[in-house]
Amino acid sequence: MWLHASCFLEFNIPVATPFLLMLRPRSGRQQWVAREQYELSPTVMAVEFTDPFGNLCQRLVAPAGPFSIHTSVNIECAEAFDIAPGAPFIEVQNLPEEPLPFLLPSRFCESDRFTQLAQSLVAGRAPGYDQCTAIVDYICQTLQYAPGSGLQIISASEVNEKSQAVCRDMAHLGIACCRALSIPARMVVGYLEGLVPMDLHAWFEAYVGGRWYTFDPTQNDRHGGRVAIAYGRDATDVAIYTQFGDPVDLVRMDIRVERVSVAL
Amino acid sequence: MWLHASCFLEFNIPVATPFLLMLRPRSGRQQWVAREQYELSPTVMAVEFTDPFGNLCQRLVAPAGPFSIHTSVNIECAEAFDIAPGAPFIEVQNLPEEPLPFLLPSRFCESDRFTQLAQSLVAGRAPGYDQCTAIVDYICQTLQYAPGSGLQIISASEVNEKSQAVCRDMAHLGIACCRALSIPARMVVGYLEGLVPMDLHAWFEAYVGGRWYTFDPTQNDRHGGRVAIAYGRDATDVAIYTQFGDPVDLVRMDIRVERVSVAL
Amino acid sequence: MWLHASCFLEFNIPVATPFLLMLRPRSGRQQWVAREQYELSPTVMAVEFTDPFGNLCQRLVAPAGPFSIHTSVNIECAEAFDIAPGAPFIEVQNLPEEPLPFLLPSRFCESDRFTQLAQSLVAGRAPGYDQCTAIVDYICQTLQYAPGSGLQIISASEVNEKSQAVCRDMAHLGIACCRALSIPARMVVGYLEGLVPMDLHAWFEAYVGGRWYTFDPTQNDRHGGRVAIAYGRDATDVAIYTQFGDPVDLVRMDIRVERVSVAL
Amino acid sequence: MWLHASCFLEFNIPVATPFLLMLRPRSGRQQWVAREQYELSPTVMAVEFTDPFGNLCQRLVAPAGPFSIHTSVNIECAEAFDIAPGAPFIEVQNLPEEPLPFLLPSRFCESDRFTQLAQSLVAGRAPGYDQCTAIVDYICQTLQYAPGSGLQIISASEVNEKSQAVCRDMAHLGIACCRALSIPARMVVGYLEGLVPMDLHAWFEAYVGGRWYTFDPTQNDRHGGRVAIAYGRDATDVAIYTQFGDPVDLVRMDIRVERVSVAL
Repeated sequence: MWLHASCFLEFNIPVATPFLLMLRPRSGRQQWVAREQYELSPTVMAVEFTDPFGNLCQRLVAPAGPFSIHTSVNIECAEAFDIAPGAPFIEVQNLPEEPLPFLLPSRFCESDRFTQLAQSLVAGRAPGYDQCTAIVDYICQTLQYAPGSGLQIISASEVNEKSQAVCRDMAHLGIACCRALSIPARMVVGYLEGLVPMDLHAWFEAYVGGRWYTFDPTQNDRHGGRVAIAYGRDATDVAIYTQFGDPVDLVRMDIRVERVSVAL
Repeated sequence: MWLHASCFLEFNIPVATPFLLMLRPRSGRQQWVAREQYELSPTVMAVEFTDPFGNLCQRLVAPAGPFSIHTSVNIECAEAFDIAPGAPFIEVQNLPEEPLPFLLPSRFCESDRFTQLAQSLVAGRAPGYDQCTAIVDYICQTLQYAPGSGLQIISASEVNEKSQAVCRDMAHLGIACCRALSIPARMVVGYLEGLVPMDLHAWFEAYVGGRWYTFDPTQNDRHGGRVAIAYGRDATDVAIYTQFGDPVDLVRMDIRVERVSVAL
Repeated sequence: MWLHASCFLEFNIPVATPFLLMLRPRSGRQQWVAREQYELSPTVMAVEFTDPFGNLCQRLVAPAGPFSIHTSVNIECAEAFDIAPGAPFIEVQNLPEEPLPFLLPSRFCESDRFTQLAQSLVAGRAPGYDQCTAIVDYICQTLQYAPGSGLQIISASEVNEKSQAVCRDMAHLGIACCRALSIPARMVVGYLEGLVPMDLHAWFEAYVGGRWYTFDPTQNDRHGGRVAIAYGRDATDVAIYTQFGDPVDLVRMDIRVERVSVAL
Repeated sequence: MWLHASCFLEFNIPVATPFLLMLRPRSGRQQWVAREQYELSPTVMAVEFTDPFGNLCQRLVAPAGPFSIHTSVNIECAEAFDIAPGAPFIEVQNLPEEPLPFLLPSRFCESDRFTQLAQSLVAGRAPGYDQCTAIVDYICQTLQYAPGSGLQIISASEVNEKSQAVCRDMAHLGIACCRALSIPARMVVGYLEGLVPMDLHAWFEAYVGGRWYTFDPTQNDRHGGRVAIAYGRDATDVAIYTQFGDPVDLVRMDIRVERVSVAL
C-alpha cells in the first residue's frame, strides 16, 4: 500500500537551541521511500549523520523565534505485518551481530529486573516467537491502552505497576520481557495508518527465527500501514527530536497519514 | 544556492537482472536535501543499505522489459568550494579513522606505482594542501579535458600515458598521486551546476589540515553548485548503477541540474 | 609506562547461561596492547563482535558447574592524562559523527533532568573544558568517594541526592551534567594502576576542543596508568559481563594491575 | 585444534616510513584467540583502528634503521572447513547487508569481465554452492599451483591467461567468477597449518545459503587449521603491511604455524 505521511512541528524558541532530529524514514526491507520532503523554516544549516542503530539523524541550531519543521514521505509498505508462530529462539552465540546491542537492558527497559516475570509468562511456550506472543498477551490483558495518558516517559518497571498505558509504555514492557529471555528486542517509532487518534506510534520488534518480527501490544491485529521512522533500544534512542538547554515551546505538532493510490 | 538535479535512466532488460544503485544523495556537511524523489517504473521491491563508505545504496531485480529509474533532489549547496592554501599534511598515526581506507591503492588508483611521480611533482611544496594543488596543476597541464572520450574506465597508470582524458580519469590520477604521498584521497561522483555538456561529473577530495577539501582538475575555478551523490576509493565504488549478468541496454540517460530560487 | 593488568572471574553456574563479555582492551590512541590472554575454563565456543561503541565483545554460553574467565594484558599507557584548560566547546552542528551518540540521555545519566544544575555549576566559565572542570569540582566537593558502597547501580539523579558514592556514580553525575550542556560525554571502565583498594575503575571522558579528554572525579590528580576496557553511554554499556536468565554466583573476582619494566 | 602461529617481519628502513599493518587476527565464528603478542622493536607509538571490512589494523611510522614486527597467536580453529553442497543462491535483494560490498568488481577481481566465462563454467549446476564448486574445479584443472612464482600481484584477467599461479592468484580468479554470478565473494589471508612451503596463505569465501563458506583452489581437501588474519575484496585490502613513500627493504619474513596441545 502507498501512504503519504507527514509530520509538522512548530516551536517557539527563546534562545538559539541545538536540536537532534530523527525525521527521515529510510527505505528498508519493509518500506520504500519514493518521495520525501524536509523543510526547515527559517532555513538553517543542518547536517545529517547515521546513528549507531542505522537511523538518519539531523542536527542543527534552531534560531530564536518561531521555528518549524515539516517532513513528509510517500512510501510503500505492507498491508499486514508478518507473523511466524513457532519461529525458534536463537542462542546468543549464534545470533548475527546486528541484533546484539538489543539484548542489553536500557534506560526504560530494565530487562535485568524482569527475569522472573518473563519466565512465568512464557511457561510452557516454545522458545522464540511463541514466547513473544505470550508476552504481548500479558500486556494486553493487564494494561488498558489509554492514548494521551503518558506525558512523562516511565520505565518498564513503572509501567508494570500501572493499569493504563500509552503505546510507548507497552512497547517498553514487551521489550524488557523479551530481553530478559535473551531475545533481542528493539523499539520502533513511526507512522501507523488509521491510528485513532492520529499521532506518532510506537511498537517493538523481536529477533527470532533469523529475522526481526513486528509486535504491537496496542494494535494487535497484524495491522500494516506502518512507516518506521527510527529504531532503538528504547524511547531514548528514538525521540524524533532532542533539544539541549532550556526547554522550548512546542506550539503545534501535526501528524498525518493517508492512503494514496500512486507513488508520487 | 538551491539546485534541482535529476537523473533519468531508461533500460531495456532482456532477462530479470540484479542491480545495485547509488542514486540517493545524502545530506552532509556541504549539502542539504530538502526534497527527493526516487521513482521506479514498473514498481519493484527495492531494499536500501548503507555501504562501507556511508553511501545510501539501493538493490533490486529489474524485470524483463523496459525499466526506468527517475531520481531527483532539491538541494542546497555552496556557491564555491572551500580552499585552504597551507593546510598541513597529517601523519598517518594522527589521522582520524574515517579517512584511513582512502590511503590504500585501489582498482583504478594504483598509488603504489606513483611514488616517484608524486614526489617529483611536489618538490619544494609544503606538505599538505599545497602538494595537492601541485598535483592538480600537473594534471591540468598534461591532460586535455575531453568529455565523452572515455567509454572504458582506465586506471591512473593508463591515464598518465594519454594526452586526453575525462573527468573520471583526471580524478583517478589526482587520487593516485595524493595517496602516494600518504594523503587520503577519495573519488566523488555527483552533479555540477553549469557543466557543459551536462552529464554526471567526477572530482576528488583530499584530507589535509583536519578535513576533506575539494579538488577538481577539470573545473579548477572553485566552481560550487556541487551535489555529491557518492564517495568511494575510485570509480568502482561510486558507479551509480552496477548490474549483474548479461549486459542490458541503457536506452537513455538524462542528467539535469538547474538553479532554483527556493527550496521546494 | 608498561602495565600488566589482569581480571579473574570465577562463577558457579546452576544452568547453562548466556553471557556477553567485554574483557579485551583494544589498542587505541592512548594505549597499545603488546600481549594479551583470554582463558576460558572449561573451554567453550566463544564468538567475538564489535559493539556500536567500538568495543570488542565476546559471547558464549557458560556450561553448568564452575566456570572461570581469566584475561590479562601487557599494555603501554601514559604516565599522566592530558589536560586542556580553555579547550573550546564545539556546537552540535560542527561535531564529528563519532561523539554524537554521547550527547543523548541514557539509562543512568538522565541528562534531560540536569539542565538547571549544570548551568548553575558552570556560571561564568568559558564554554568547553573549563565547564567540565567546574562539574568535576562540584562532584568532588559534594560527594565523598566511598569505594565498595555501591552494590546497586543508581542513576545520576539518585547519586545527586546522596553524600557518598562510588567511582561509577560520580562518573554518571559528571556525564549527565556535561550532556546537559551539549558536551558529549562517555563512560570509561578500565584498570587504574595504584588504585586502593584495587578494583575495576570507572571515569569519564568529555569531547571538547576537537578530542576526548579524561576526567576522573575520584582520582582527580591527572593520574595516568589507565587501561580503558570499554567505552559506553553509561554503566549499562560497559558492564564487563552481562548474563541472561537466573542469576549466577560470582564466586571470586580478582583484579590486578602492576607496573612492569618491559613489554613482554 | 589449537595452533600457535607467528609472523616475524624485519625491515631496513632508510627514512622514517608510515605503515599500515594488519597483523592482529580477530576471534570470530571460526576461530578463538586465547593468547596474542604484538611486539615492535624498537617500540614506537602505534594506533589501532577497525577497517570497513572489520579487520583490526595498526598504523605507525617506522623510524629509520632496523625495525622488526613480531606477532603471534594461540588460537583454536576447526579441523576441517564446512561444506554445503546444494546450499542455495540468494538473490541480491534478499542478501543481508554485510556481504553486499563483496559483490562489486575490485582492483584484482574485475568480475565485470567474467560474466561469460562464469556462466559457461556453471552450466547445468544448481545456483549457489554447486556453482562455486564448479568454479574451483575449473581453477584447479587449468592452473598449476606454483608457490613462489608470483612476485607481482596480477589481476584475475591476467591470471586466467596463465598456466601457473600462486594461491592469491587462484583466489582472485575464484572471486571474480563468483561475483560475475552475483555471488558475494571475499579474499581471506591467513595462516594454514601444514602448508608446504610454509608461508602466508590466501583463499576465498563465498556467501551462499545464508553464510560464508570456505573455498580453497590450492588446498582443496577441506583442510582445516586455518587462521584468518584479514578479509577483503581482494589482495589490496588484505595486505599484511602497506608502506608509503620510498620502498623499504624487507630483510626477513618468517611464518610459523604449529599444532599445540593446549591453549596457552
